[in-house]
Amino acid sequence: MSNEVIYSPGLDGVAAAETRISLLDTKLGEIVIKGYDLIQLSESKEYLDIVHLLLEDALPSPADKVKLAKQLQDEYQIPSEINDIFKLLPHETHPMDGLRTGISALAGFDREIDDSSAEANKRKAYKLLGHMPNIVANSYHILQKKEPIAPLEELSYSANFYYMLTGKVPTSLEERIFDQSLVLYSEHEMPNSTFTARVIASTKSDLYGALTGAVSSLKGNLHGGANEAVMYMLLDAKTPAEFEALLQSKLEKKEKIMGFGHRVYMKKMDPRALLMKKALKELCDEQGNDTLYQMCEAGEKVMEREKGIFPNLDYYAAPVYWMLGIPIPLYTPIFFSSRTVGLCAHVIEQHENNKLFRPRVHYVGERHLLNQ
Amino acid sequence: MSNEVIYSPGLDGVAAAETRISLLDTKLGEIVIKGYDLIQLSESKEYLDIVHLLLEDALPSPADKVKLAKQLQDEYQIPSEINDIFKLLPHETHPMDGLRTGISALAGFDREIDDSSAEANKRKAYKLLGHMPNIVANSYHILQKKEPIAPLEELSYSANFYYMLTGKVPTSLEERIFDQSLVLYSEHEMPNSTFTARVIASTKSDLYGALTGAVSSLKGNLHGGANEAVMYMLLDAKTPAEFEALLQSKLEKKEKIMGFGHRVYMKKMDPRALLMKKALKELCDEQGNDTLYQMCEAGEKVMEREKGIFPNLDYYAAPVYWMLGIPIPLYTPIFFSSRTVGLCAHVIEQHENNKLFRPRVHYVGERHLLNQ
Repeated sequence: MSNEVIYSPGLDGVAAAETRISLLDTKLGEIVIKGYDLIQLSESKEYLDIVHLLLEDALPSPADKVKLAKQLQDEYQIPSEINDIFKLLPHETHPMDGLRTGISALAGFDREIDDSSAEANKRKAYKLLGHMPNIVANSYHILQKKEPIAPLEELSYSANFYYMLTGKVPTSLEERIFDQSLVLYSEHEMPNSTFTARVIASTKSDLYGALTGAVSSLKGNLHGGANEAVMYMLLDAKTPAEFEALLQSKLEKKEKIMGFGHRVYMKKMDPRALLMKKALKELCDEQGNDTLYQMCEAGEKVMEREKGIFPNLDYYAAPVYWMLGIPIPLYTPIFFSSRTVGLCAHVIEQHENNKLFRPRVHYVGERHLLNQ
Repeated sequence: MSNEVIYSPGLDGVAAAETRISLLDTKLGEIVIKGYDLIQLSESKEYLDIVHLLLEDALPSPADKVKLAKQLQDEYQIPSEINDIFKLLPHETHPMDGLRTGISALAGFDREIDDSSAEANKRKAYKLLGHMPNIVANSYHILQKKEPIAPLEELSYSANFYYMLTGKVPTSLEERIFDQSLVLYSEHEMPNSTFTARVIASTKSDLYGALTGAVSSLKGNLHGGANEAVMYMLLDAKTPAEFEALLQSKLEKKEKIMGFGHRVYMKKMDPRALLMKKALKELCDEQGNDTLYQMCEAGEKVMEREKGIFPNLDYYAAPVYWMLGIPIPLYTPIFFSSRTVGLCAHVIEQHENNKLFRPRVHYVGERHLLNQ
């Protein structure tokens, strides 16, 4: 019935936006971020370098980085009303729904909300990035009926984030690995949440609105929820042999196994997963217990042998967060917090070169006349 | 740099989903809703008929309709915490952001949130439809530092909605016209907000999350904000001649004029606008003052003569809401409230026959090597 010619379910293979931000280059096997290979970046750069790269279009000088760190520190605190709102949410609220309500409510506190120029959007992005560890950590603590944790302004961005999540100042290894996980989750072309943010921004709606939608998207268990699902699965076994048996049994029952495969990579391991695998080994060595590492390796082999599929980032980020002592329900909120910078870059780009998203449908319903 | 072949900015001309819900049939000039022409429906059916049609796939029998009315009445009340949350939002909060925060917070109160079966989703849809007048009206009243208005359970859905917005029980003409406006806004194929809801739902995220994203989308002034913009423009003039001059001057300055044209209709008048035009005439006649009607007609002629474009629904819904005594900042929240049923139908359909939206990009950025 429709006049349309192009229909690709899930927009598979359809380019939805022109972008200078990132690309999954499947031929070269690179995740390109503002021209650089993310894997290379993650080996020598920190999360704040990536923030500067994504929002200012260049890696920072040492002076730029000091300035950026200060700018975010100045925004570690959030309006007290946001914590009061968290206190009104039912204890059963999903942490992503708590986080979303916090970001949605923050919109009203921003006096620049109606200004969607690149400069105003960038100021909003820095403000939100500064707030994010506080919102992620304290929405969770308050929903758990615990006291909120106040930021420690003398700590670096990642160390303070880790501290607010766990109540513990990280060791230098913990800080480095947590920061690296933020780098790896920071930006990744056009996953559903980024697409959601751009679709919303294309109506000229503001950055807070676009990010609120992206939280909803990332909550879905086909998207951001996967890292948590991986951890619950690992906890269902105690040894590598038990984990192998668990996966085999899931495969026989044709159950979906999270943490493997990716629509874009498919035929090789997500390069980000390799880095988190190395980090997991370091944490296991430091703690003198490599059971989780052995289990993950065993699972990796089962899936390659039985299905020819490979781990994605979530598969190794989950046990890394576990070894870092982070509560499981925070894994997806942390993923969102890290991705905030990528999302903001996409919203800014969409607002600067906008065309409203307004697709059509392939109508397969009936037609009838009304008996009046 | 990208391997992709299909790139259409804004997904113009791309079918994004297979649907049995609705179609803008530009050849026949029909807005098809579950097989019926919306214009025909709106001449003899009420909003609750459309709710039943969209969620139960058939127009209701008289008994069905009584049952539906009761079901929604049972949900007129919202948890008191939601009003307490509204009280914590800054007075400057945009009404759509207040509405969004309310829907986002409601998610935690729904014990079925993780069940995305069609049956559970339908129960959520009815609950949300019952709550919506209360959330729309009281988020606004509370942001205005006024007392919330309690629902009157003996009133019909539309009469109670109107009462909660204005504090006044409507006359039968007012009730009929307000209800008709809800029918006309109820569903409209795949505008940005509906697309947003489906994109989010495709991650298996829940109905509240999908609707939260849709509020953000509808807030944008290229989408739902148009009806409010029309009214502010009308208020800038006092007579038909002044309004003509205002439009002429805007045209000369190449300013965007809201309320005209539609990417899908373009070359003729939005058939929904015709019905609201008729309603505006009736309200003007009842109140013995047809200035607004004359101004709108004059504006319509200017735009047809100068640009060959025609009014859309927003152009005539705005003065209708004005004559109904509804505060301008509520026009877009009312649009959202009416569209809630269409959005819910799309989320249910997406969850039932799902494929994750995950498009690619057309990368036009640079590539460089990192100096390490």
